[in-house]
Amino acid sequence: MRMVDLIEKKKHGLELNEEEIHDIIQGYVADKIPDYQMSAFMMAIYFQGMTEKETAILTNEMMHSGDTMDLSAIQGIKVDKHSTGGVGDKTSLAVGPMVAACGAPVAKMSGRGLGHTGGTLDKLESIPGLSVYLSEEDFIKQVNEIKLAIIGQTKKLDPADAKMYALRDVTGTVDSIPLIASSIMSKKLAAGADAILLDVKYGDGAFMKNVEDARKLAKTMIAIGDHLGRDTRATISNMNQPLGNAIGNSLEVKEAIATLKGEGPRDFTELCFEAGETMLLMTKMAATREEAHQKLEAVIQDGSALAVLAKMVEAQGGDASYIMHPEKFPKTKEVITVTSLESGYIEDLEALNLGLVSMKLGGGRAKMDDQIDHAVGLVLKKKVGDHVEAGEPLLDVHTNTGLSEELKADILSAYHIVDHEVAIPQLIEEILE
Amino acid sequence: MRMVDLIEKKKHGLELNEEEIHDIIQGYVADKIPDYQMSAFMMAIYFQGMTEKETAILTNEMMHSGDTMDLSAIQGIKVDKHSTGGVGDKTSLAVGPMVAACGAPVAKMSGRGLGHTGGTLDKLESIPGLSVYLSEEDFIKQVNEIKLAIIGQTKKLDPADAKMYALRDVTGTVDSIPLIASSIMSKKLAAGADAILLDVKYGDGAFMKNVEDARKLAKTMIAIGDHLGRDTRATISNMNQPLGNAIGNSLEVKEAIATLKGEGPRDFTELCFEAGETMLLMTKMAATREEAHQKLEAVIQDGSALAVLAKMVEAQGGDASYIMHPEKFPKTKEVITVTSLESGYIEDLEALNLGLVSMKLGGGRAKMDDQIDHAVGLVLKKKVGDHVEAGEPLLDVHTNTGLSEELKADILSAYHIVDHEVAIPQLIEEILE
Repeated sequence: MRMVDLIEKKKHGLELNEEEIHDIIQGYVADKIPDYQMSAFMMAIYFQGMTEKETAILTNEMMHSGDTMDLSAIQGIKVDKHSTGGVGDKTSLAVGPMVAACGAPVAKMSGRGLGHTGGTLDKLESIPGLSVYLSEEDFIKQVNEIKLAIIGQTKKLDPADAKMYALRDVTGTVDSIPLIASSIMSKKLAAGADAILLDVKYGDGAFMKNVEDARKLAKTMIAIGDHLGRDTRATISNMNQPLGNAIGNSLEVKEAIATLKGEGPRDFTELCFEAGETMLLMTKMAATREEAHQKLEAVIQDGSALAVLAKMVEAQGGDASYIMHPEKFPKTKEVITVTSLESGYIEDLEALNLGLVSMKLGGGRAKMDDQIDHAVGLVLKKKVGDHVEAGEPLLDVHTNTGLSEELKADILSAYHIVDHEVAIPQLIEEILE
Repeated sequence: MRMVDLIEKKKHGLELNEEEIHDIIQGYVADKIPDYQMSAFMMAIYFQGMTEKETAILTNEMMHSGDTMDLSAIQGIKVDKHSTGGVGDKTSLAVGPMVAACGAPVAKMSGRGLGHTGGTLDKLESIPGLSVYLSEEDFIKQVNEIKLAIIGQTKKLDPADAKMYALRDVTGTVDSIPLIASSIMSKKLAAGADAILLDVKYGDGAFMKNVEDARKLAKTMIAIGDHLGRDTRATISNMNQPLGNAIGNSLEVKEAIATLKGEGPRDFTELCFEAGETMLLMTKMAATREEAHQKLEAVIQDGSALAVLAKMVEAQGGDASYIMHPEKFPKTKEVITVTSLESGYIEDLEALNLGLVSMKLGGGRAKMDDQIDHAVGLVLKKKVGDHVEAGEPLLDVHTNTGLSEELKADILSAYHIVDHEVAIPQLIEEILE
């Protein structure tokens, strides 16, 4: 069948079959189907959607468009974790070591940050010497030995997604649930884990703006996992304010270290425990959520979770002394405290805009080839529900380039202060299994 | 504004302004906007539509993307006619000379056929020597001297449409009313006529499958004409069976000649009179439809309509003796009569499938660079509403390559024969002014 006929079929809302989707993905990766047909096809998907079956087939075809990792040499049920991305999201850096310390093998592939959201790889690279590029053999060996490895995705994995994502980005076809779901899941499946925990975020600072869309995306990804025989579960969590207090690469690593010592922010710690519990259930390292919670508490209390992070850093060529002595991380020239102009309760704290401030300080990328300053960022002193007096600190700005009036105004306008009490928002909306 | 933001805007159903549409069309013609963004944009238009204002702006920008014809050197109100295309549609070849013979200047640009529909240029070229490519100067001179010229469109006219149409054809974005309307109207407006009569066809053998869509397309084009100050009117006509009896290039020219002698098929003659009347009203050559009808009758009776066609053929380098002696047109090796297998009344006659049979005999193009055999085609003996006995002729196949069992089966299955009487269908549904 000709590609134009397949575009017409999708345009008219009909279901494509396995052979048709196979031909499209194979043809596109082989440069036989031109970008202009693929972009029209993806725009038709934006409007007509895809059935659960079509989405699973699409994911499977994308997953098999390149190499797939074979993790069978790793003992036990290998678990991977993926967050749809948010501001201040350093969950993998804390929950990975926690779960690994409990004995579950965590084999994780991560991405880089773009725009207002940071990437796990960029955060890890704030540790001197650490490499996120390991051979498949070394990756497997490391997970067998210390139960944890966090690495970057090779270009040979899921080339269909790389090509499709670049096209979606310039053709207005990013925000389609079947396309987002197949993009995330095809990469996770190609990376070879047996079990996948998804953290789907919603709100101002996340890709999904409301909880309904986040739930829809989560359910779509779980259905893909079911179709393709991988245990897939999801947490729906709120990203209307940044997660934890730190935004910026080494600042977030330090917050993850504090959390592994039991000294992390309340909301971030809660998310790490919820995610960790689910991962222990998925890997059969605990029979109940309560048991899982106790195990996670124990590895924080006895320091073994922090020790696993240090071992991973060392195994990947990094300087592990930074983990035990986080005061060694380079500091910025200045730390400028921004204080409140008014008194009241914080009703809203725009995660998106604070993420953009951190990016503009040099902590993130506007374009894929921008260089990152790992030391810069923000540390929040007040979050939603907190009371603040005029003149009291709202946050600290860690900067090597001062603080322009414009960025200061962006920070102040991200804080919405009202005169009545405000409840602390619920972080985790739902766990879907 | 970036193109991706304009795609998003249209995707979300928002109205684009003049500057935005200008930038898109200019950018696309200048190769600054890539095909993959344009195809995604046009797919978004397919789903979200365009407002009347947007469609008029788009048409205006396309019209001005290249040269425009200046016909002001032609005296009187210049009228052009456009049919959305159908099977057996040779209207321009008859109504052009009829209207010109009444004194109205007919300055017409035509296209070539593709798929099951024939093109006026291809039909004209079945006359030996005739050229459809005239300079603007010669075109104007010819219309001033003999009131009629039918020529091909130059490549300098409306390059935006040429580029957009080629892209729509391979990206499933052909059947969008604002895109069809702007494509037709931008070419007609660039060709410079003061008044435009549109023949919008609907049914199995036409682009619009039902009367509602045809009416919507006609109204959209009339609105564009109004916005841009050109008198635009439309006929909505039925294309559920072929128009007239002849399908195929020289066969259709011969039927047009017969019609100019008052000997044409009833349905085709009716359409020519309706269209001709409207064109005489638009050019102020008649005050009422009755007066227009009488003038058209007169130019057929006195032979002056046929004489104008002969003059045009001569002026464009063709052998005019073919017009006066149509028996000179080359004949095919064989004329094979297909007879009915059953007795009854013809309820339906699939125009689309008969058009495809004629194309497969060599009378049309599957691809733009296919060569045409001008002599081949079909001549219908029975049409919808007619009674037929088993063994009686349904149609004659004019062929140089025999008649395969497959094509014969296609012909037989195009005729739907029932045992009850069937009313003769109404050809003209409506005239929109």
